[in-house]
Amino acid sequence: MTQPYNHIAIIGIGLIGSSLALATKRILPDTHISLYDHADDVRAEAGQLGLGTEIHDQISTAVSNAELVVLAVPVGAMAEVMAELADSLKPDTVITDTGSTKRSVIKDISPLVPDDCHFIPSHPLAGTEFSGPASGFATLFEKRYWLILPNGNEQIKIDRLAGYLGALGAMVEFMDTEYHDRVLAITSHLPHLIAYTIVGTAVDLETQLKEDVIKYSASGFRDFTRIAASDPTMWRDVFINNDEAVLEMLQRFTEDLSYLQRAIRWKEKDKLFELFTRTRDIRRSIIDMGQDS
Amino acid sequence: MTQPYNHIAIIGIGLIGSSLALATKRILPDTHISLYDHADDVRAEAGQLGLGTEIHDQISTAVSNAELVVLAVPVGAMAEVMAELADSLKPDTVITDTGSTKRSVIKDISPLVPDDCHFIPSHPLAGTEFSGPASGFATLFEKRYWLILPNGNEQIKIDRLAGYLGALGAMVEFMDTEYHDRVLAITSHLPHLIAYTIVGTAVDLETQLKEDVIKYSASGFRDFTRIAASDPTMWRDVFINNDEAVLEMLQRFTEDLSYLQRAIRWKEKDKLFELFTRTRDIRRSIIDMGQDS
Repeated sequence: MTQPYNHIAIIGIGLIGSSLALATKRILPDTHISLYDHADDVRAEAGQLGLGTEIHDQISTAVSNAELVVLAVPVGAMAEVMAELADSLKPDTVITDTGSTKRSVIKDISPLVPDDCHFIPSHPLAGTEFSGPASGFATLFEKRYWLILPNGNEQIKIDRLAGYLGALGAMVEFMDTEYHDRVLAITSHLPHLIAYTIVGTAVDLETQLKEDVIKYSASGFRDFTRIAASDPTMWRDVFINNDEAVLEMLQRFTEDLSYLQRAIRWKEKDKLFELFTRTRDIRRSIIDMGQDS
Repeated sequence: MTQPYNHIAIIGIGLIGSSLALATKRILPDTHISLYDHADDVRAEAGQLGLGTEIHDQISTAVSNAELVVLAVPVGAMAEVMAELADSLKPDTVITDTGSTKRSVIKDISPLVPDDCHFIPSHPLAGTEFSGPASGFATLFEKRYWLILPNGNEQIKIDRLAGYLGALGAMVEFMDTEYHDRVLAITSHLPHLIAYTIVGTAVDLETQLKEDVIKYSASGFRDFTRIAASDPTMWRDVFINNDEAVLEMLQRFTEDLSYLQRAIRWKEKDKLFELFTRTRDIRRSIIDMGQDS
């Protein structure tokens, strides 16, 4: 396959960055892949893993020959990283990011993008609870959505980025910024916040009870612990940067939870049964759409 | 293997009842298995699936020759079912149940147990989001905990029940009633309540947003929809019957959620990071205990 870009730079060698390097190498082997991470130990680990074409000690040299620069860092670090590399970009370079919040990233990055370069925000809906360069794998993006936010760019630039991500196996879709942040608030950010909360509630239990909660976690709680094991820095930044949409969805959730709490207290069996029947239908829709089995 | 009981009766042919019939048939093939369910269509389906030694149309004949009667019905139906079958039990029969709440079941069943019979409550920590006779499988209880509540019974009776459940591959442990209900409130009941709530919140979103939440559900929400697809009758009864422990844990959860909500609103990054780091450790404990990978 002819590669859409001859030279890409990936900034941040975590789960997403390392997976992107592995997928690109496997599917588009002639692509030159420059990697950079600000942490010495991460660069060293990436080197041992043989990730990318080469690993740079300087962000400037990592990006200076790239046609595409991918910012795969926590959303709270986007502005700082962009400021560091902006002067080293060659004309016509496309910059994308992989952040889970888009309004904040566009606000942070846009003022720093050189006039002759092009920022096309994006977001792969893919991940695991693991982090770091060793957690990456080449098939992470296969059959997973990768959302592109056109952000006023030329169609030809957008198509090229979409072609690259599609070549890696991702299902590319286009989405508006505000809408993205609302959809993600409910599909991803609120579930993570709730999982963190309930696991946190368990952490604070008295010792014996906490130990038994861990021991007998199989009946529902365990799924939450997996979600709540996700990268703390990434998720701290997500909540801070999508605070508006998250707080709106959280408000709705809290109201609904109070409604159920009251139904339990007053033993209103019909209210509980009615809701539990409706929620079952959503699962059916997801299975019908082939998103799970 | 010599079977601990020559004749068992299973009342309720749902996920648990059918799995118990399949596991017993496979591992203790000489055990006579009488099945009963109050629903005509469930009995018919169980018959087509070839479950048990025979399927009874009357609860009285199902239990009349049994040495062990297993009540595998929603906890809200325990009293009614026990009242129906009590007069048909032969002397020295052991009755157990598989309900997720134990204080309520003991309160409901104990007054109805004949003086010459023995009620030993129990609870298998095993299940899926599916229900009905076709959802059962013989390995459901393998390497899963099955809690027994001694409830003042003779040790020899308890040991025999433990021997039977252990033969099916379950890891048998003993637990006190109040403690059971608190542990389950946090490991199972609260996670289910929260999953039902968040999926319910999504159900009420405007149409387009709801459709996209389903479409892009992979990033966290999907795990909740699986939990929230569990049997509505069973779960309605669980919340109504373990209301005290559930409401206590829910109160703690709500406080913790308010704390995080405030941290997001005021952009208190350190508070978020600190909690997300602590919750990660719980996951590590669960993996270390071999409960997940």
